[in-house]
Amino acid sequence: MENIVFTGKINEELQQMLREIVEDDIFILVDTETYRYCLPLLPCLASVEKSHIIVVGSGEHHKSLESASEIWSVLSVQLAKRNSVLLNLGGGMITDLGGFSASCFKRGMRYINIPTTLLAQVDASIGGKTGIDFNGLKNEIGTFSQPEKVIVDPVFLTTLPERQFLSGFAEMIKHALLSGLDSLEELLHTTPLELSGAMPLERIEKSVNVKYQIVKNDPYEKGERKALNFGHTAGHAYESLAFLRGEKLYHGEAVAQGILFELYLSVQKEGFDKTLFSRVCKYISEIYPPQMSEINHYELYRLMTHDKKNEREGVNFTLLKAPGKFITDCYCSEEELLVFLESFQHIVWTGE
Amino acid sequence: MENIVFTGKINEELQQMLREIVEDDIFILVDTETYRYCLPLLPCLASVEKSHIIVVGSGEHHKSLESASEIWSVLSVQLAKRNSVLLNLGGGMITDLGGFSASCFKRGMRYINIPTTLLAQVDASIGGKTGIDFNGLKNEIGTFSQPEKVIVDPVFLTTLPERQFLSGFAEMIKHALLSGLDSLEELLHTTPLELSGAMPLERIEKSVNVKYQIVKNDPYEKGERKALNFGHTAGHAYESLAFLRGEKLYHGEAVAQGILFELYLSVQKEGFDKTLFSRVCKYISEIYPPQMSEINHYELYRLMTHDKKNEREGVNFTLLKAPGKFITDCYCSEEELLVFLESFQHIVWTGE
Repeated sequence: MENIVFTGKINEELQQMLREIVEDDIFILVDTETYRYCLPLLPCLASVEKSHIIVVGSGEHHKSLESASEIWSVLSVQLAKRNSVLLNLGGGMITDLGGFSASCFKRGMRYINIPTTLLAQVDASIGGKTGIDFNGLKNEIGTFSQPEKVIVDPVFLTTLPERQFLSGFAEMIKHALLSGLDSLEELLHTTPLELSGAMPLERIEKSVNVKYQIVKNDPYEKGERKALNFGHTAGHAYESLAFLRGEKLYHGEAVAQGILFELYLSVQKEGFDKTLFSRVCKYISEIYPPQMSEINHYELYRLMTHDKKNEREGVNFTLLKAPGKFITDCYCSEEELLVFLESFQHIVWTGE
Repeated sequence: MENIVFTGKINEELQQMLREIVEDDIFILVDTETYRYCLPLLPCLASVEKSHIIVVGSGEHHKSLESASEIWSVLSVQLAKRNSVLLNLGGGMITDLGGFSASCFKRGMRYINIPTTLLAQVDASIGGKTGIDFNGLKNEIGTFSQPEKVIVDPVFLTTLPERQFLSGFAEMIKHALLSGLDSLEELLHTTPLELSGAMPLERIEKSVNVKYQIVKNDPYEKGERKALNFGHTAGHAYESLAFLRGEKLYHGEAVAQGILFELYLSVQKEGFDKTLFSRVCKYISEIYPPQMSEINHYELYRLMTHDKKNEREGVNFTLLKAPGKFITDCYCSEEELLVFLESFQHIVWTGE
């Protein structure tokens, strides 16, 4: 794949890459966590000036306009140029925030993503979507902008907390569902925590490849790319709801819940196989036990209407006829949705 | 030209265009001035909801992150979608700010520029550069993003104050210099204030065409587009200096001064004809008498190094060998520049 490097030797890779760049022109974006746990794994960056290391707070609430503004201030004061390079070292929060900031600084400076979480490695850092949260909404402000390179090394996953690992695994579930029955069966026979700490590079590469192929055909999300939204229309609404309530729900946990609901919609509206749905439902429910307190369906619906891909009242989903057979722009009216949310909750709670 | 419409009947043009858009999805960005003087000239927009009219303060200091944030708030709260349309009705401040805001809202919503000043009509609203000022620097944050359409109608120029008209005229001077000797001679025989209030549409179209041809070949400013930077490396520095001092200097006034200095550099370094320089110098000096209080050359130099097109110490300029014969990336060291700034000031003040 073009600009994605899968490697077990990131220091060699980076050293090679940075050889042509004046040290003065390298900037590193980290959060407090990756500053502590990931930056020390990259001794090849030891010579970068301290004033060029930009540390923001960790956690989704720092994926904000305030953080972008802080980054722009450092870049501007330190005289970063268009062909200076910003290295985004972190999870999806950092690659989204850093990518957005870089894409707008002087109308676009160079940047390289070094994703350090499973979520960022298989999803967030790939595909050229950048963004910050705004008005309580995920990625409300952002750009389409391709990093010059993405370097994926599983070394960072070894220190990743279990819950964060599972959050990333949700996107691998999505990719398996979008890929086809073989991938799905392989997935359903995988116990994710057995991979934690020793994720095979090929497994990541295979998952990324599902996304990469789709994005290549439709970088600006005019059509096919909406497939990747599977699980995310509902997922983002769950996530926003948790955010507004101050409850801690990881992106992948929200997406896992979103996948379940949208797969349920797929059964109801597109004839997705019921038995297969039950197996996936059981698999996901065991990995991701329900986290959120009681959910108001109308509130959830309102949050879904904020989704960027919507073009009229009601909500458009990507649904599946079968594993690997997706249909974008499946329209659900408000009435329909409220009924499905009700019956879905019943199924999830009772297993029937 | 593709997406630029030159018309004397903007209401008909707009009505046609807006026919396919749901009224709910139209947003209008104005400043306090264009709200008062320009919006009433567009009765075809009378049915747009009041809550969808976004008014920001007028003046360059409102081309800020705070204004962008205000615009995003309205768009978000009013549930604007990706295929909603933002109409930017105003001068370069509004088309830059509105273009930037639109290009980042949900990673890019549709927008149309309706430039209402001469400056915006011949320059700012064309070519897909958007931006806001940041850290005291012009367009430090921005994107490359093409408006869906630009509609140019001289009707708005009839109420334009003289000083603003002349500010726009500076870009027409630049275009004439970049175009060739014929255009330059035509210009030198033009008394701008005679055109004020009755600017012929063909004259605007001809000037825009110079920019359009260059941008078409190099939209992301990798090479040829830097030609359009002629007069602007120094011009932006003059403008930033005035801004930092709280002195009122219009963009075009700063650019006129920048053109003079860079034409002087062209004489010194690239053999631009001295006699022609003297004629242009006399022409420009009569239209734009010096506005700024005493200038510290080192301060000016520092501001030039902030220019986005620079890639090493010293400053790169676009210079002219002759009218129409531009050379990009002409390097001037700090020492050289400080000497030229000194001798240039002497010439401008003494006319020798």
